[in-house]
Amino acid sequence: MEYTFSNKMNALAPSAIREILKATSQPGIIPFAAGNPAPEAFPTDAVREISARLLAERPIDCLQYSITEGYTPLRERVRLDLQQRLHAGAQGDDLIITSGAQQVMDLATKVLCNEGDCVIAETPSFIGSLNTFRSYGVRLRGVPLQDDGMDVDVLEKILREEKNVRFIYTIPNYQNPGGCTLSPAKRHRLYELALRHGVLILEDNPYGDLCYEGETPPCIKSMDTDGIVIYAGSFSKILAPGIRVGYALAPQPIIAKMTVGKQAGDVHSAIFSQLLVDAWMQDYDVAAHVAKICAIYRSKRDLMCGGLAPAVAADALRFRQPAGGLFLWCDLPAQTEMLAFTQAALAKSVAVVPGSAFTVEPGEKVNAVRLNFSTPTNDQLRQGVAVLNEVLGV
Amino acid sequence: MEYTFSNKMNALAPSAIREILKATSQPGIIPFAAGNPAPEAFPTDAVREISARLLAERPIDCLQYSITEGYTPLRERVRLDLQQRLHAGAQGDDLIITSGAQQVMDLATKVLCNEGDCVIAETPSFIGSLNTFRSYGVRLRGVPLQDDGMDVDVLEKILREEKNVRFIYTIPNYQNPGGCTLSPAKRHRLYELALRHGVLILEDNPYGDLCYEGETPPCIKSMDTDGIVIYAGSFSKILAPGIRVGYALAPQPIIAKMTVGKQAGDVHSAIFSQLLVDAWMQDYDVAAHVAKICAIYRSKRDLMCGGLAPAVAADALRFRQPAGGLFLWCDLPAQTEMLAFTQAALAKSVAVVPGSAFTVEPGEKVNAVRLNFSTPTNDQLRQGVAVLNEVLGV
Repeated sequence: MEYTFSNKMNALAPSAIREILKATSQPGIIPFAAGNPAPEAFPTDAVREISARLLAERPIDCLQYSITEGYTPLRERVRLDLQQRLHAGAQGDDLIITSGAQQVMDLATKVLCNEGDCVIAETPSFIGSLNTFRSYGVRLRGVPLQDDGMDVDVLEKILREEKNVRFIYTIPNYQNPGGCTLSPAKRHRLYELALRHGVLILEDNPYGDLCYEGETPPCIKSMDTDGIVIYAGSFSKILAPGIRVGYALAPQPIIAKMTVGKQAGDVHSAIFSQLLVDAWMQDYDVAAHVAKICAIYRSKRDLMCGGLAPAVAADALRFRQPAGGLFLWCDLPAQTEMLAFTQAALAKSVAVVPGSAFTVEPGEKVNAVRLNFSTPTNDQLRQGVAVLNEVLGV
Repeated sequence: MEYTFSNKMNALAPSAIREILKATSQPGIIPFAAGNPAPEAFPTDAVREISARLLAERPIDCLQYSITEGYTPLRERVRLDLQQRLHAGAQGDDLIITSGAQQVMDLATKVLCNEGDCVIAETPSFIGSLNTFRSYGVRLRGVPLQDDGMDVDVLEKILREEKNVRFIYTIPNYQNPGGCTLSPAKRHRLYELALRHGVLILEDNPYGDLCYEGETPPCIKSMDTDGIVIYAGSFSKILAPGIRVGYALAPQPIIAKMTVGKQAGDVHSAIFSQLLVDAWMQDYDVAAHVAKICAIYRSKRDLMCGGLAPAVAADALRFRQPAGGLFLWCDLPAQTEMLAFTQAALAKSVAVVPGSAFTVEPGEKVNAVRLNFSTPTNDQLRQGVAVLNEVLGV
């Protein structure tokens, strides 16, 4: 039989990262291409203790069907935490537990967008989210990144040009892949522009807790007196990604529609994962754990950035050191043939992702690579940057 | 702000069942409306042993990101199991692990259907799946159920009338809500009709293992020499629903597209759940466990059916005793006011779902209720049927 697929899915190829990650998972490859937490960053003892306790004390709750919105005590706990730590969440907001923050992007697009509607995103941006938007047949418009986050003048221009913009997608903190952080002034400008044009903001904040110097600026959701911000959070980076627990904090009518969408999508997220997160937040010192993993990642970032100093000194590579997050965005000289560079690194067992994988317009020429410093061991970091220096002829 | 939603989601109201289930979860309500496994049907000791072992021996594998297709050993194990037990799965097929079988419906619709395309389903049918189809803006056509499954003559008529039919959705075994099973002869006719019209079949088989007398007929996928059947399976009814592990077995190009869709939807299903299922299938006697839960549900079914004998004798209620599954479909006399009946039962603390909740055409008049016998305790079964007899004036 000849299979034909929906138009929206025909437009969507498997992600380049996904193919590169297959290479990455080969033994012996140094993984600068991934975005995995470091194994030593997982609170494994806590997970063991909590799992044994939950399965001893309330096994049926761990295994039975649950409700689509998510485990009620966890929803309340996360709401309170967001209020206290981030001053995020107003009277009219509600919260839904999702299968990772990725599902927030999926549900938001599903409930808000018809095919052909416009979504605005930073370019480059997280390919997983861009592909989610594409999988609903939306038109994407890209706003270039600057050192202090998206170019809000371009954003304003696009908002004036485009009809049917449904939301503006941003990763304000330690952006993936750019590593940059949206300045407080630009956050206000973004919020005002969205409000003036009647457009929602989808604020994706998986990295906000991973701050290695200074402070993460206030989230956009904390300014949301008008009910225009959907805030996506995740336990993937501070607890573990394999459990797939994320959430959306947003105006109640949007959460209600997302709940109907999730019910039709996967009924509810794995309840054992939700109980685990709830017990972890209740019984363990999350702040101390976050401080511990920040120390791990700060040190890994410094190893990577320090190791690339020869290339920087030789003008073979340029980066802004990220103040948090998991990624280093490196600009290479304009004449660099990126495919050749990536392949040369891979031939020497170092996997990196070419910057063009992250652009809103497919095939855009970008003389940059994204490097991840959370996944490799310290030894791999030292070896890997030595290889990159070598490939750059330094 | 005034929120506007996508056309496809505007068409989709929260499910009636969902609202009734909220009532059901009130303390003191006898739950004939749900579809939960019985607590005593969960292999809790096995889950405890496996969880402790996995978290002791390979904690990082339980917590780290995994691949979208699912845990490779589990995929291979399920494929082999389907081949050996059901003779399902050809050379050209592949298998993806999903977040419950519900996600198979979601991904299949997403990759196969444009808005306005047609999907054919039995009427009545599982409301969760119908809502998934609706959430992608497809047009639904219903094929009435008979005692031996869908009316294939009506199916043929619809296939002749309709353009752009993308698939035929069927729950062939112990259908939800109808309780009936598609006869072997009709399975062949369905397959031939689909093949002749170039239409796929989405075979949803969550209940096939729950057989209380005789044998479950061969699945439609076992006849699939032409690559036209997407088979959806689940561990929700034989292991536990809260872990959200299901799968699709389908031609490789369809699985490949579903994988791209799932990557954009939730990246992967909770990996701990997948490792748990894999270890359970490897180290425990699944067939013995299924035999045990069949004995539990057979006895519950008999309690419910036997308890309703007075109403049957008084012609106040009619049902075909289901040979498996979790549900009893009861026809009531034509003059019965269904809303009043449901409310009268609820006033006496028994929750049931009116049959109209399951129709393909919303608002269709159906003089029937769906009763679930897996969730209530044996005491609740006895009390609940006494209440129903009373409400029926018997």
